[in-house]
This record gives sequence, C-alpha cells and structure tokens, in this order.
Amino acid sequence: MKTYRRQAYPTEDVRHYLEPGPVALITSACAGRRNVMTHAWQTVMEFSPSLVGCMISSANYSFELIRQSRECVINLPAADLVDVVSRVGNCSGEDTDKFARFGLTAVPATQVAAPLLDECFACFECVLYDDVLVDSYNFFIFEVVQAHVALSPQHPQTLHYQGDGQYMLSGGHISRRHLFTKVL
Amino acid sequence: MKTYRRQAYPTEDVRHYLEPGPVALITSACAGRRNVMTHAWQTVMEFSPSLVGCMISSANYSFELIRQSRECVINLPAADLVDVVSRVGNCSGEDTDKFARFGLTAVPATQVAAPLLDECFACFECVLYDDVLVDSYNFFIFEVVQAHVALSPQHPQTLHYQGDGQYMLSGGHISRRHLFTKVL
Repeated sequence: MKTYRRQAYPTEDVRHYLEPGPVALITSACAGRRNVMTHAWQTVMEFSPSLVGCMISSANYSFELIRQSRECVINLPAADLVDVVSRVGNCSGEDTDKFARFGLTAVPATQVAAPLLDECFACFECVLYDDVLVDSYNFFIFEVVQAHVALSPQHPQTLHYQGDGQYMLSGGHISRRHLFTKVL
Repeated sequence: MKTYRRQAYPTEDVRHYLEPGPVALITSACAGRRNVMTHAWQTVMEFSPSLVGCMISSANYSFELIRQSRECVINLPAADLVDVVSRVGNCSGEDTDKFARFGLTAVPATQVAAPLLDECFACFECVLYDDVLVDSYNFFIFEVVQAHVALSPQHPQTLHYQGDGQYMLSGGHISRRHLFTKVL
C-alpha cells in the first residue's frame, strides 16, 4: 500500500481535515497491547486548544486501551483503503493483530504511545482532555497535541460512512471565500 | 429555490445523513424570536435514543434561543444552496431576519417550535437530551424526536466545510456491504 510523507501541521487547523466528516482509523496502545479500529463518530469542538470529541463504543476492544492510556492517534485513510477500512471495522483486536493481518505500518508517534499509520495521509496525536462523558456516553474529549499531514495530494479523496456498508466519497472542492466577512 | 417533498424517516437511521459530516442549517425559536444558523460541528452519539452532539458557539445569536427553548431543527441543504449557506453563516440574527433576507421558507415542525426549512432535503426535529456540557463546552446533546427526509434524489449532493471559505462536495457512493459481518 502507498505510504505518505507527512509534515508537522498546526493543531488549531485540524478542522480542515476532520470537519468534513471522514472515516478514521484510530490507533491505541496500552501495557504492551495495541490496536486499530475504524471510526467516524467525531466532531471538532474547539480550535485552540485543539479539541475533538469522539464517541467510541465500549463494545470495541480499543475502548479500554484508550480509556486506560488516555491517548490515541486519529489517522485518516484515503478512499483507496476502503477494503482495509471495512475489514478493520469487522474484526476485533481481541483475537487479531490487525496491523499484521492488513499490512498496516505502525510508525512511532512523538507524544503518545499509540502509533501513526504510515498508509494514512493525516495522523493526529491525541491525549484525553476531559473524561467527564466517558462513563455516561463513551464520549472522549481529546486534545490534538501533534498533527502530521501530507501536503500532497492537496485533496485526498476521503471516505464518509453512511451505515449499512455504504460509503460516500468526497468529490470536488469549491471556494466561497468572497462571501465570508470573517474567515473561520 | 427548490423545495422538497419529505416524508417521515426512522430516527434511529439519521446517521445515514449526519455521519458523513454535512453542513447544516440549524433553526431555532424562542419567545417570539427565531433564527437560522450555519453549522457543522456535530456528531452522531447513539442510534436509539437517536442522539446527536452539537457544539454551538455562544457567540452565535442562536445559542441563547436554543439554550432557553431546549429545542432546534437540524436541516440539511444540498450543494446548490452554497451561496445561501455561506451568507447565512456570515450575518447575525440579532439584526437580520435571515428567513426573509435569503428567501428561506419556514414550515411548522410537528414536535418543536423551531421551523423546518422547506428548501432542505432533510429536517431533524431535536430536543435537548442532556445539558451537562452546555455551560462548559457549548456542547448540546440532542435527541432527534422526528425526522423528515426527501427520498428523491437518493443521494443529494452535500456540502462539507473545511474552514477558510472552502467546501468539499460529496462525490460518488460505493458499497462494501459484502465485507461487513454485522451491518451497522
């Protein structure tokens, strides 16, 4: 699979990648165990600190790894990884080394133990910022502490899950900057 | 502008529309005032009850209308409304009747005071389910209590905001259902 040359990216600008709602591969590591899961229930919550809210079902093997380590990496795959993304989401880290099984390359992160995925064009290192909704809603409020983004291609085609095994793909890109009085 | 013929849709399936991350027009009403704002910081949080988490900045005129009424409607515009969506997001309901100014048709909802927008292909009536994070993060956990969706076109082209006045458009749709062991 293709790998990317990523560079550091401002954490306050990660909304550029996350706000459109792409499917992510979330990696985690805790006490010698690690895993990768497919994920899409996230929203940007603040620019600075760079906060991202993630609903991660406690039915996932990754849930306890993330809850206990209080860290993860949100990795964004391009659309050509749709088969891997689907398969990763349909088996469990409890009985499968998904990195080996699906040929995903774990690269050391800089600030967390969870690895970056070298096959992803963007990787956001996250630490748990607030656990207030973890027990009640399985909702983690993460701070993105380090962002790595490949600047080429400029617009990687992304996957957007719709349930029932169906994905929407990203299409064109347009600007309406001339209609914005303040550009947020 | 085009209007849609919508019909009732199962609330537990609204993730089909919201999970891909489209820009929304959120309507609100409280004590004789009403407004519409452009919004994109949302995530699905649960199937049933149908929960959606929305970060709505307190800098918006809509914030107090929604906080006090504990209701809103999440309306989804197709991509041909990009100019209206941009303009709605760049003026304030404090000094503008955006419905009149932008030719948006307010239609009575069934369970909330906030109106549906007839120019939107999907309208989700929401009531505040949990206000635990409203004061600390401006984060509203809503329950979708009634959903209205136009079944034609099957795949309306949606807008996905990336900041800086730039939008990603939805593109094609693909199925990987054969790779799913359990279809969620």
